[in-house]
Amino acid sequence: MKTYHLSVVVATGLVGQEIVRLLQSRRFPAESISLYSSDRSVGRRVAVNQRELVISQTSPEAFRDRDLVFFAAGAEVARYWVPLAVQYGAVVIDASEAFRAEPDVPLVVPEVNPQDILNHKGVIANPNCSTIQLALLLHPLDKVNPIKNVVVCTYQSVSGYGVAAVDELARQTRMVLDGQTPAPHVFPHQIAFNVLPEVDVFMDNGYTREEWKLSEETRRVLHANNMIISATCARVPVNVGHCQAIHIEFVSSINTDDARRILSGAPGVRVTDDPSVSLYPQPWSVAGTNDVTVGRIRQDTRTPTSLALWAVADNLRKGTALNAIQIAEEGLKRGVI
Amino acid sequence: MKTYHLSVVVATGLVGQEIVRLLQSRRFPAESISLYSSDRSVGRRVAVNQRELVISQTSPEAFRDRDLVFFAAGAEVARYWVPLAVQYGAVVIDASEAFRAEPDVPLVVPEVNPQDILNHKGVIANPNCSTIQLALLLHPLDKVNPIKNVVVCTYQSVSGYGVAAVDELARQTRMVLDGQTPAPHVFPHQIAFNVLPEVDVFMDNGYTREEWKLSEETRRVLHANNMIISATCARVPVNVGHCQAIHIEFVSSINTDDARRILSGAPGVRVTDDPSVSLYPQPWSVAGTNDVTVGRIRQDTRTPTSLALWAVADNLRKGTALNAIQIAEEGLKRGVI
Repeated sequence: MKTYHLSVVVATGLVGQEIVRLLQSRRFPAESISLYSSDRSVGRRVAVNQRELVISQTSPEAFRDRDLVFFAAGAEVARYWVPLAVQYGAVVIDASEAFRAEPDVPLVVPEVNPQDILNHKGVIANPNCSTIQLALLLHPLDKVNPIKNVVVCTYQSVSGYGVAAVDELARQTRMVLDGQTPAPHVFPHQIAFNVLPEVDVFMDNGYTREEWKLSEETRRVLHANNMIISATCARVPVNVGHCQAIHIEFVSSINTDDARRILSGAPGVRVTDDPSVSLYPQPWSVAGTNDVTVGRIRQDTRTPTSLALWAVADNLRKGTALNAIQIAEEGLKRGVI
Repeated sequence: MKTYHLSVVVATGLVGQEIVRLLQSRRFPAESISLYSSDRSVGRRVAVNQRELVISQTSPEAFRDRDLVFFAAGAEVARYWVPLAVQYGAVVIDASEAFRAEPDVPLVVPEVNPQDILNHKGVIANPNCSTIQLALLLHPLDKVNPIKNVVVCTYQSVSGYGVAAVDELARQTRMVLDGQTPAPHVFPHQIAFNVLPEVDVFMDNGYTREEWKLSEETRRVLHANNMIISATCARVPVNVGHCQAIHIEFVSSINTDDARRILSGAPGVRVTDDPSVSLYPQPWSVAGTNDVTVGRIRQDTRTPTSLALWAVADNLRKGTALNAIQIAEEGLKRGVI
């Protein structure tokens, strides 16, 4: 069996750490793994596959002789380093939004559009966490009964914004419980015991980039240019796990039994749906699991062609790190990495 | 100026306390106020208008010589006592859902359908908190451009479920921060750092009663039998303030400037909408205020006839107690109380 030389760039963030953990637990055929980060964490030691690895400073040489590099950094870092890594001959799977809209960069959810991987020119982009979650659910339904439009409202956890955001939620929560008024640092306003309808920056049309990405990226992953997705994205005081309330209008009528059957058979999807015992997906129970979990499957009251769902996924797993590794696994299988 | 003999039944819950506070701060023309509760709080003293009132045990005599009784109890308590209060000659404003669907009980949001008060037969019902918030926003828009359908997703605070729920959120939050796993008592699952897509009980069609009420009551308040409202209601770890992401489809095209102008002029509505400085409604800043605050007014991407909004209201104020008192004020003005 062939083995590969891997790198993880920014291996110390929430997503980078999750990639390193999953590479081990999924027994990814790694010949070697090297870990990189920004200045502050350089020199820190991390145990990987019973060996101790030292986190190194990112440099062009980091990509020499690497088969595959996972980028779990922000878009700015990715824009600088990804082209260098490709120049040195590595295939890059990038979790940032830097290359997602590039026509010759495949944007991939392996259960949905694995064939797109074949067209890569060195970079494969991981969609936004909310996109992966939504695309995975829409795809099996859309294949059977084309989707006209979707209204999706998100309840997103703070870990999507990184370690500092998780720390801020904990710190602010303690302060509020102690009767103090916390000042926001990471988020524009207090996030403890609050809801902020602002995920990523605002655009001129009144939408946030998160809402725009959720729409544009999902259409791209599904190859569904005519599907209309209208989103409201909000941040809630939850650590891990994004929720989505999804209201879908199809071309033809659909009943809940069919929808449940289709979703139950879809790869990467788990149906958890028994209202009689309050069984439905929730962040607390979905965090740490790999599937997109869906429940509350019911007829949308608007038309017999509409359906309503409630879905939760671990935004660090299937939302980011797991999807990136699945792209790599799919690429190996198809012989293009 | 005529003054009135008032009672508040279950004056010790979150809503009852808010009613007592608002009766004072709005200088409601009260000749006397008497406060009632269940066994446990009987005998407790409360300061009202610089006088100390003792909370009494609810009894049929409690309603003798009363002009107006505010019921801030659950539906079961209301079903038992409200008919007795009416029999004793009082006009009742009931915040529970007990009588909301009765054809001869007006269901009123004073800014929307004040004329319905004229038809009361002794009982006037206060709509559900989510309904009041939604109806107040839809009404001015619907008058100008009829609404075909609405998809609304809620982010509801725990105080809608009473004092015990607020205590449970605080207790569970401390436990999670201390690394413990809390057992749920009030809610079916942990609410701290979690989201529960279950508000009120589930019905056979997969909807919760909260979702059903939000649809049916809003149609009734708006006298809009053909308007379709599809809802997902979820509970979030917030103390006070319900959020709603509202996606509306109209009969004719609508632009955001017109919508902003219409909403800015609507009674009980405040527009807070400047994304360039992260200004939008949020529970933390709306709690303790009287208006339904709306922002993030933008074109819904589905059609030029659609609009998306984000609204927050204090569920104990306009959501319940304030609306009940406004019904009374409107009844006095129209001479039917």
